[in-house]
Amino acid sequence: MLRLVLPKGSLERATLELFEAADLAVSRSSEVDYKATIADPRVSDVRILRPQEIPVYVAEGLYDVGITGRDWIEETASEVVSLGQLEYSKATGRPFSIVLAVAQDAPWAKVGDLPTGVRVSTEYPGLARRYLAEHGVEADVRLSYGATEAKIPDVADAVVEGTETGRALRAAGLRILDTVLVSYTELVVNPTSYDDPVKRHAVHQLQTLLRGALEARGSVLVKLNVGESDLDRVIGILPSMKAPTVSQLHGGKAYAVETVVEKAGINVLIPELKDAGASDILEVPLSKIVH
Amino acid sequence: MLRLVLPKGSLERATLELFEAADLAVSRSSEVDYKATIADPRVSDVRILRPQEIPVYVAEGLYDVGITGRDWIEETASEVVSLGQLEYSKATGRPFSIVLAVAQDAPWAKVGDLPTGVRVSTEYPGLARRYLAEHGVEADVRLSYGATEAKIPDVADAVVEGTETGRALRAAGLRILDTVLVSYTELVVNPTSYDDPVKRHAVHQLQTLLRGALEARGSVLVKLNVGESDLDRVIGILPSMKAPTVSQLHGGKAYAVETVVEKAGINVLIPELKDAGASDILEVPLSKIVH
Amino acid sequence: MLRLVLPKGSLERATLELFEAADLAVSRSSEVDYKATIADPRVSDVRILRPQEIPVYVAEGLYDVGITGRDWIEETASEVVSLGQLEYSKATGRPFSIVLAVAQDAPWAKVGDLPTGVRVSTEYPGLARRYLAEHGVEADVRLSYGATEAKIPDVADAVVEGTETGRALRAAGLRILDTVLVSYTELVVNPTSYDDPVKRHAVHQLQTLLRGALEARGSVLVKLNVGESDLDRVIGILPSMKAPTVSQLHGGKAYAVETVVEKAGINVLIPELKDAGASDILEVPLSKIVH
Amino acid sequence: MLRLVLPKGSLERATLELFEAADLAVSRSSEVDYKATIADPRVSDVRILRPQEIPVYVAEGLYDVGITGRDWIEETASEVVSLGQLEYSKATGRPFSIVLAVAQDAPWAKVGDLPTGVRVSTEYPGLARRYLAEHGVEADVRLSYGATEAKIPDVADAVVEGTETGRALRAAGLRILDTVLVSYTELVVNPTSYDDPVKRHAVHQLQTLLRGALEARGSVLVKLNVGESDLDRVIGILPSMKAPTVSQLHGGKAYAVETVVEKAGINVLIPELKDAGASDILEVPLSKIVH
Amino acid sequence: MLRLVLPKGSLERATLELFEAADLAVSRSSEVDYKATIADPRVSDVRILRPQEIPVYVAEGLYDVGITGRDWIEETASEVVSLGQLEYSKATGRPFSIVLAVAQDAPWAKVGDLPTGVRVSTEYPGLARRYLAEHGVEADVRLSYGATEAKIPDVADAVVEGTETGRALRAAGLRILDTVLVSYTELVVNPTSYDDPVKRHAVHQLQTLLRGALEARGSVLVKLNVGESDLDRVIGILPSMKAPTVSQLHGGKAYAVETVVEKAGINVLIPELKDAGASDILEVPLSKIVH
Amino acid sequence: MLRLVLPKGSLERATLELFEAADLAVSRSSEVDYKATIADPRVSDVRILRPQEIPVYVAEGLYDVGITGRDWIEETASEVVSLGQLEYSKATGRPFSIVLAVAQDAPWAKVGDLPTGVRVSTEYPGLARRYLAEHGVEADVRLSYGATEAKIPDVADAVVEGTETGRALRAAGLRILDTVLVSYTELVVNPTSYDDPVKRHAVHQLQTLLRGALEARGSVLVKLNVGESDLDRVIGILPSMKAPTVSQLHGGKAYAVETVVEKAGINVLIPELKDAGASDILEVPLSKIVH
Repeated sequence: MLRLVLPKGSLERATLELFEAADLAVSRSSEVDYKATIADPRVSDVRILRPQEIPVYVAEGLYDVGITGRDWIEETASEVVSLGQLEYSKATGRPFSIVLAVAQDAPWAKVGDLPTGVRVSTEYPGLARRYLAEHGVEADVRLSYGATEAKIPDVADAVVEGTETGRALRAAGLRILDTVLVSYTELVVNPTSYDDPVKRHAVHQLQTLLRGALEARGSVLVKLNVGESDLDRVIGILPSMKAPTVSQLHGGKAYAVETVVEKAGINVLIPELKDAGASDILEVPLSKIVH
Repeated sequence: MLRLVLPKGSLERATLELFEAADLAVSRSSEVDYKATIADPRVSDVRILRPQEIPVYVAEGLYDVGITGRDWIEETASEVVSLGQLEYSKATGRPFSIVLAVAQDAPWAKVGDLPTGVRVSTEYPGLARRYLAEHGVEADVRLSYGATEAKIPDVADAVVEGTETGRALRAAGLRILDTVLVSYTELVVNPTSYDDPVKRHAVHQLQTLLRGALEARGSVLVKLNVGESDLDRVIGILPSMKAPTVSQLHGGKAYAVETVVEKAGINVLIPELKDAGASDILEVPLSKIVH
Repeated sequence: MLRLVLPKGSLERATLELFEAADLAVSRSSEVDYKATIADPRVSDVRILRPQEIPVYVAEGLYDVGITGRDWIEETASEVVSLGQLEYSKATGRPFSIVLAVAQDAPWAKVGDLPTGVRVSTEYPGLARRYLAEHGVEADVRLSYGATEAKIPDVADAVVEGTETGRALRAAGLRILDTVLVSYTELVVNPTSYDDPVKRHAVHQLQTLLRGALEARGSVLVKLNVGESDLDRVIGILPSMKAPTVSQLHGGKAYAVETVVEKAGINVLIPELKDAGASDILEVPLSKIVH
Repeated sequence: MLRLVLPKGSLERATLELFEAADLAVSRSSEVDYKATIADPRVSDVRILRPQEIPVYVAEGLYDVGITGRDWIEETASEVVSLGQLEYSKATGRPFSIVLAVAQDAPWAKVGDLPTGVRVSTEYPGLARRYLAEHGVEADVRLSYGATEAKIPDVADAVVEGTETGRALRAAGLRILDTVLVSYTELVVNPTSYDDPVKRHAVHQLQTLLRGALEARGSVLVKLNVGESDLDRVIGILPSMKAPTVSQLHGGKAYAVETVVEKAGINVLIPELKDAGASDILEVPLSKIVH
Repeated sequence: MLRLVLPKGSLERATLELFEAADLAVSRSSEVDYKATIADPRVSDVRILRPQEIPVYVAEGLYDVGITGRDWIEETASEVVSLGQLEYSKATGRPFSIVLAVAQDAPWAKVGDLPTGVRVSTEYPGLARRYLAEHGVEADVRLSYGATEAKIPDVADAVVEGTETGRALRAAGLRILDTVLVSYTELVVNPTSYDDPVKRHAVHQLQTLLRGALEARGSVLVKLNVGESDLDRVIGILPSMKAPTVSQLHGGKAYAVETVVEKAGINVLIPELKDAGASDILEVPLSKIVH
Repeated sequence: MLRLVLPKGSLERATLELFEAADLAVSRSSEVDYKATIADPRVSDVRILRPQEIPVYVAEGLYDVGITGRDWIEETASEVVSLGQLEYSKATGRPFSIVLAVAQDAPWAKVGDLPTGVRVSTEYPGLARRYLAEHGVEADVRLSYGATEAKIPDVADAVVEGTETGRALRAAGLRILDTVLVSYTELVVNPTSYDDPVKRHAVHQLQTLLRGALEARGSVLVKLNVGESDLDRVIGILPSMKAPTVSQLHGGKAYAVETVVEKAGINVLIPELKDAGASDILEVPLSKIVH
């Protein structure tokens, strides 16, 4: 029922892994690699295309649902409904930012200092023009086909470019003046499809599965045993995301406690639980969490 | 006690992964790669040999138990006891089929149309001869050493060849006339060994472990909490493979429900459970299931 | 608070995987590969350096805690507090041994037979000299920079060299005379740091997390259901590491039993449990166990 | 003196190999990969940038000389002086063509049949618009970011796309309607630089070296001996590119003949020479030919 | 005019490199990898098939000319005209031998010692049966699908297997009893094609090109200058394959000498030439030699 | 007759390629990788060992001839006869230098500024101690097992380390204070072997072959034709390494000129020759030059 479009390229592998983890495994066509299917009654068709083009196609209704970056949604100024971020990154945990950068020794300290006619090289000409205009800069914006940081000083005075760690910019001798946009991967829907209650319900169900898989990646199930006297203390230490599941053990004054906790922080939590009287603490990996 | 023979080649890696998942990890000899051991009191010796030869060796009693394909059992017409399929595939989820194929523009529509003296190239001459004879075709069957689809039209008029997706056949301009055999990987036992009650019990225990690992791959443990009022509805939705484990939670009217469900279908099940009142739904990966 | 030093080279990947499994993921610097951090309040700084040098640096207090091999602790005769082995190996399950080896046809049967002036090639000159002196051998010990087994007979009469399987020694035509040292990877602490109660507590907490991850690798959680009449028999079969967790199931005479068991032996245990009346036996992977 | 810009990406490796063969080896900077130098008094600076942007930069005079494809010169409508093709291909010997393609079963037989509003996806929007306008077609031309053949039928009715073998187009079920442009790699010069006699001379010298290396790839030096009586016959068979070098051998009636011949055809030439009386025929590889 | 069949698999790459060196470059089809062409008026068609099947196809006239191993010509007892060896090996310079091997500790010293009913595993059942029959051994010969050395002692008492270095046999604990056949790669022709004078001439021309390329690999062109007084001594040292080409240098009493010599031995020859008065000795690589 | 030892590790591949180019191809043993042979009557035996140990072994007479770096000859203070550099580099054309480096912001400007007790980390403790003592510095020199640049500031104040480009030092924030040694690869001989006239002659012959191969890499044979009137001018332009070989062409007033020139500079030479009237200029690759 839903037509789905997923991003080809740097996000492709991570996206397919996420869909598999969400029990929505994507089967590529054995003939051409941009066609695929998902064995799910809500999904009629899957395409794998460049993320740059996805916002436009979803906005035009060629596909109902897509996954792409905020950078390309803004660049193409596409009218799509965003259901928010899907936090799975390319390489590092840091966000992908579109920044304005100049040569280390350039005389400008902030965007407003850029002179009229400044040459700006970018893979995001639409975004860059709007951003510079908002800051009152009249620039000569030129499309870059990649390796944009190499354009300074020969063919540009400034660049608007994406970066995670800033490493390539530093290696090219550039300095970041401003962050134009922090870009996340988002789940976007065609507005008309989203107005259709049946499609909207189906999209939310897919989103539930994807978010459930993502949340499971950052969490573990903690199981522990604890005597009656220490029960309250142990429960008091547990993060209060959700009430833990407590069961009385057979024939005794001890309890089994189960709860889901975030991985971040568990290195501190487990020693604390032990100190508070918990025993037989187990960490069990999860593949999905749906609240 | 049992002598075991596993398939070398395209099935090798998947077989060793299955045995490791079944807690029967195979240790290769550091001297020669066809000898191995399993740290299990039921297994005295392990060999890793070509799947084509395994049915004969098991039939002759050189090994008690083997893993091989149905295609080679049929090709060699070996008398072995099969304990059934082990469903772990080479590359795709599709079965491996031995098919009869001819040129796209050949004048034949079914096997019976093939004329006397038709040249048939195949890696399965025994199987092909029996199949063609059963259909009343007198053929000139020739052993192919691989890339059989390339034999038409130069050196053959038809081929009997294995395929999963049919892609290589299509690329070579061939058309499938008939399926000769659908071949699965099977666990096979020497008939005399199988008549020995001690060996038979040991083989069934190994089979239990292997099947337990395979079943776990296609299943997950689902845990959820549900209030008393929604308990019956939620349990009604759960697939009826096995009764779920229900425990009353400490000090309240809520229940913890645990059950094993197949991965296929869970993308539909989880949203339904949520709609029915379940909360804190967790999917936990499994490494073995034994009923 | 703690300064940590981890081993570069053959142990590096396994060490980083262990720390990640212990919820102590190591983030490499994006600038230089020997600097890293761990997002943990107890760890101020991480370095990744050669294991040969780690014992000295920890003994001198340049770092509080390190991971290195017993071989280099002995070679450098460093004064460190060892918190014991961390059993994660390079390639095989076998321990890494430092052995004394000679040519297959050499006339010596034990270390004491080596003549005065015997030429000994080794990457461990300190260790070799002390070992040979203890056995009354006056040797000409020379530093080898690798491929030590190749030194016999051209440039050495004997070698003191590390080996897991003995394979390279056999291939070079050598015979092992004696084991000088069995070397494990150990967690070592600077004595002064270890005397500081705050640091000692922090080190023990890290050790708890690392051991918890290691123990989880060799164990699984077994869950099963059993009727009242078979409960005692099933519990009697379970290994007595720790009392199992038993919960009565809702509305019946059946029990849910959970326990952690070692992977070694589970291939025998599961068929026994089934024979004893257990049903719905599940094996669940674990990511940490803290008693 | 000359500033040079070379293409990054699919042509990069072949370009660097050609320059090395022309004794103009390119040394990459050890800091950033888009800067390089050539140890040649005529070349002051080398940059390695996307071929799409090179025509513009050379036209604007940011660099004196560049190497890029005819496709991007046309797409950007850049005013550069072309010194002609450099025939070194990406993968096959076939030219790279920009073609107009539609679905196999589309109702159009030639470009003029395309209806008003036809959706055309292309990486060459400038080129496509001009081409379609010249043929009287009013099209909705859209920028494609790659895998353009996958756009039909979902998001486009026709594509303007580059291809060497047509394989990807066929695999996607497309049919070629017309060839828009046959594109070769060319050596291009800034018009002002080319008007400067010193720079023009330097550019021609570089071209001589590059062409000399390319010609050598397709040629070999043939050396042979021949008696006086067969000399004319043998020389008559040799291709008449250039008069062969003939030397009389010491003390006899025999001659040594040397000539350069194209590799294409040498498989036929050598047996002919032998039949005509030549002996000791040698083929010697060449690294440069300058007429 | 000629239909050609080349070997797929372990010889494939070396064969294609040889044809390219012989100025007979093989272009693979972009559709299927077993079809190819050579831009040569004598060759109408090229196929790349398993070497095991090539002798049969050439004998039957499906192809005029083929390249395959002597082992498969003998195994299939095919009637083909062999134009002799083409000496380009798989990995080492040693010939590929088909040997009879038994366990290191087997009681047999020569082929005639093998008892009636001895189990022989081999990829060459035809060849093995004929060989054993000629030596009066009644054996149970079985087809092996590979890794034949692993068959002893479990499923065979002896093997007939190909080897270059004997290494795999030694590693498996086997001992060579006899050499059944030394197998080289050969150029084979269909007898009827070879009787056709036009085809025979064309085949010999191809052979000339292939042999010319092979001979060039093992040879170099040596050029040197020598004064009149040393000329005879230097020429006396040169290997007498062919008279050297001697030219008098312009305006002096010195001579330029050129000759082709084998690479084997040139390490000794060059210092000798220098001692005998030669100067400016150059070694020039060759790509073809036709006498 | 000569026992030869070649360097394992980073120089290994380049060394084996050089020996092959010198017609002294090294055949590795099929059993152990540190034994080899060369089919040459002057070489009885070849070993491939760590370059660090080679100077000592050659000095002690365990081998007659070796190839190693000047750095290890100095570090081990070995008494060997050096026959000079063999200029084949690891990765770049730059020499490998052993330098003294400190932190970018360290207060020292030259080696003499280093204070008493300065901690120096190095893989060359012998060399470093002698160098520092010569400059009047009393240092605490410590053996580094690699990644020495990472030792500052934690465990060292200065390093003595090898570098080609200085890149790793810069990345680690270090500054070079002084060059301790420029190290080349050298051919070294045992003094006693070198005193033996037969061995000395044999060593010089090997050196001739190695140098002949190296010189050929940096040179090409240039062949050209020129009319009588331009002959002197063309010859005047040719580099005066050696008189060119001039032959009068058959029946005319033209000459064939051949000479060897260095590759460096040929990019300038060839256009000059053409301007001076040379035609049919050919560059022919060489595989050996012996003057």
